Amino acid sequence: MGRRTADVSTPARLAAPGEGLGQDELALAARNHGLPLEALRYDVTPPGLHYVLTHYDIPYVPDTTAWSLTVGGRVRRPLNLSPARLRAYPAVTTRVTLECAGNGRALLTPRPVSQPWLVEAVGTAEWTGVPLRLLLREAGVEPDAVDVVFTGADHGVERGVEQDYQRGLPLGVATGDDPGVLVAYAMNGAPLPPQHGSPLRLVVPGWYGMAQVKWLRDITVLATPFTGFQQSVAYRIRREPGEAGEPVTLVAPRALLIPPGFPDFMSRSRVVAPGTVTLEGRAWSGHAPVTAVEVSTDDGTTWRPADLEPDHGHRWAWRRWSSVWTAAPGDHVLSVRAHDGSGRTQPTEQPWNRGGFANNLVQRVPVFCAGRAQ
Amino acid sequence: MGRRTADVSTPARLAAPGEGLGQDELALAARNHGLPLEALRYDVTPPGLHYVLTHYDIPYVPDTTAWSLTVGGRVRRPLNLSPARLRAYPAVTTRVTLECAGNGRALLTPRPVSQPWLVEAVGTAEWTGVPLRLLLREAGVEPDAVDVVFTGADHGVERGVEQDYQRGLPLGVATGDDPGVLVAYAMNGAPLPPQHGSPLRLVVPGWYGMAQVKWLRDITVLATPFTGFQQSVAYRIRREPGEAGEPVTLVAPRALLIPPGFPDFMSRSRVVAPGTVTLEGRAWSGHAPVTAVEVSTDDGTTWRPADLEPDHGHRWAWRRWSSVWTAAPGDHVLSVRAHDGSGRTQPTEQPWNRGGFANNLVQRVPVFCAGRAQ
Repeated sequence: MGRRTADVSTPARLAAPGEGLGQDELALAARNHGLPLEALRYDVTPPGLHYVLTHYDIPYVPDTTAWSLTVGGRVRRPLNLSPARLRAYPAVTTRVTLECAGNGRALLTPRPVSQPWLVEAVGTAEWTGVPLRLLLREAGVEPDAVDVVFTGADHGVERGVEQDYQRGLPLGVATGDDPGVLVAYAMNGAPLPPQHGSPLRLVVPGWYGMAQVKWLRDITVLATPFTGFQQSVAYRIRREPGEAGEPVTLVAPRALLIPPGFPDFMSRSRVVAPGTVTLEGRAWSGHAPVTAVEVSTDDGTTWRPADLEPDHGHRWAWRRWSSVWTAAPGDHVLSVRAHDGSGRTQPTEQPWNRGGFANNLVQRVPVFCAGRAQ
Repeated sequence: MGRRTADVSTPARLAAPGEGLGQDELALAARNHGLPLEALRYDVTPPGLHYVLTHYDIPYVPDTTAWSLTVGGRVRRPLNLSPARLRAYPAVTTRVTLECAGNGRALLTPRPVSQPWLVEAVGTAEWTGVPLRLLLREAGVEPDAVDVVFTGADHGVERGVEQDYQRGLPLGVATGDDPGVLVAYAMNGAPLPPQHGSPLRLVVPGWYGMAQVKWLRDITVLATPFTGFQQSVAYRIRREPGEAGEPVTLVAPRALLIPPGFPDFMSRSRVVAPGTVTLEGRAWSGHAPVTAVEVSTDDGTTWRPADLEPDHGHRWAWRRWSSVWTAAPGDHVLSVRAHDGSGRTQPTEQPWNRGGFANNLVQRVPVFCAGRAQ
């Protein structure tokens, strides 16, 4: 028997105790990238600083006017839409914080071998497009519909399965208006950049990144639950390999801190001067609005409430928080945790799953305060 | 004795044989990023796909109008220039390919522990700004001047030395017009993004990235050679720790291939169908124009010339090359190498140095051709 396409894949695995990152993980880290945490200062992430994760190659679309988005399956009136025709619908703009479902994976023990995120796979943008529910209403969804499947133009092999990237949403989410799912053609007021799905992508506020199908070229309504690779094999919460597992869906609450002071190049250790330091950052949750943020400056021993800014009408975007800290000479570990309206918060000890999904372990930022005690 | 700021740094070191990447290297890989190689298709790299390397934090400059660039030292008329005043000079736009001096470092054995690039730390942009020689002429350089030092606003610790990022250029390079060094305020026709030096940066065509000082706030003319950390300690070609070493300067020739076909998610192995495959990519050199590109489809055993496009008037930008390959079923390794007008080319066995600088080992792209023999 010759080698087959499926054989280019290696099985999913966990890193051995103490095993450093391999070149496969590095190849993903070098092409995908996180938000440099100092960019948490911006309400809306400037272009190029928003996290990016692409499973396969970024499709090359030199002529976006030739793109077409088809809407079919269990609908009465299939649609074929160009980006120009989508721009003729009333535009909706929503500010949304997106986070990769694998954020935090590289901090797990044992480490699932995949895209090795620390805590930085996040970003916030203003997405402009057409509400998906309007397109589905125009197409006329049949009464037996249950799932809606979204297909991107990105193509590859994954764990032996050759595929276009595909994800499904329950019909109720696809046709709902809270959150309103968008077929987006603009990011921060400009056409989508190639790495964010040019010319069209899905934006599902409150859901992890795997739902936000980029380079969107087809929407198919199904009368049966969608069981594609990214739905049934990948993006499941499992502790054992054979389990069906729970699907990854909404973003768990998380708060991040802008590391204060300045860094060491290699260790990324932080240095601050003694005295007043304003700690600040962002907090978000896909389950319910963030209701409180707490800060610890003693490695999680004690916590105190931070000041939390209102959401300024942006329910699906991160909220700014701040807290004043009086730094004394010596070593400190700063942490922050978010609480949301569903009663969820962030753990200080990590629950673990084989895929490394939906982690929201509290961030730890070691800081050295230089100088003499005052 | 208490801990000092310098103690947050760890000494420079080489990875042990077989040692995987550590979390320090991952922290750099997660925030800095390379060019996804499929983006070699673009003449000018779209925003967000150009490689980025920042030693410390990206400075936060909410009000760029308040920025000032000072020009001083051994000059008769010190200058203090705002971005608005720089825009009043006649604008020059140059298309320049930039590459990090550490590109390829993570492929070395032993591996220098630092920013772990594979081959992707490159990008090409249209930089618009004011020729540095005009500013130095206006300031009136004193006859005893030898070096010009550029200071960025990025601040940190590195190998125990707290510093603003600083690099020097010999006076002849700073005041020359081939290449013309720019004080740039725009990238691809838009204001510089934060991660590329907003609001002002240096662009030195043909030199590695360490010379391209971002967040530029001061230019000082010296009557003695500049001996700052990034000039005399970092960015030197050394085989032994104690050596003075040779400075890293011009970009060595390199060609890269757009990996053909489609990838496996985790291994990044490539799959192509049997038959005609157009191999294409880019080639550049800082020493002299690229004169030829060769392609190998048998892991470097034989080489044949690729078609090399003219530079279309962009001496300092990469040039497109292409070559048709008839893929037969089985496993192949594709490589490409550039030759330049100075007689330099790319090695197939890696010369090594402790910093992992100025590598230009030929790229190897393993490809599996699926299907039956024809």
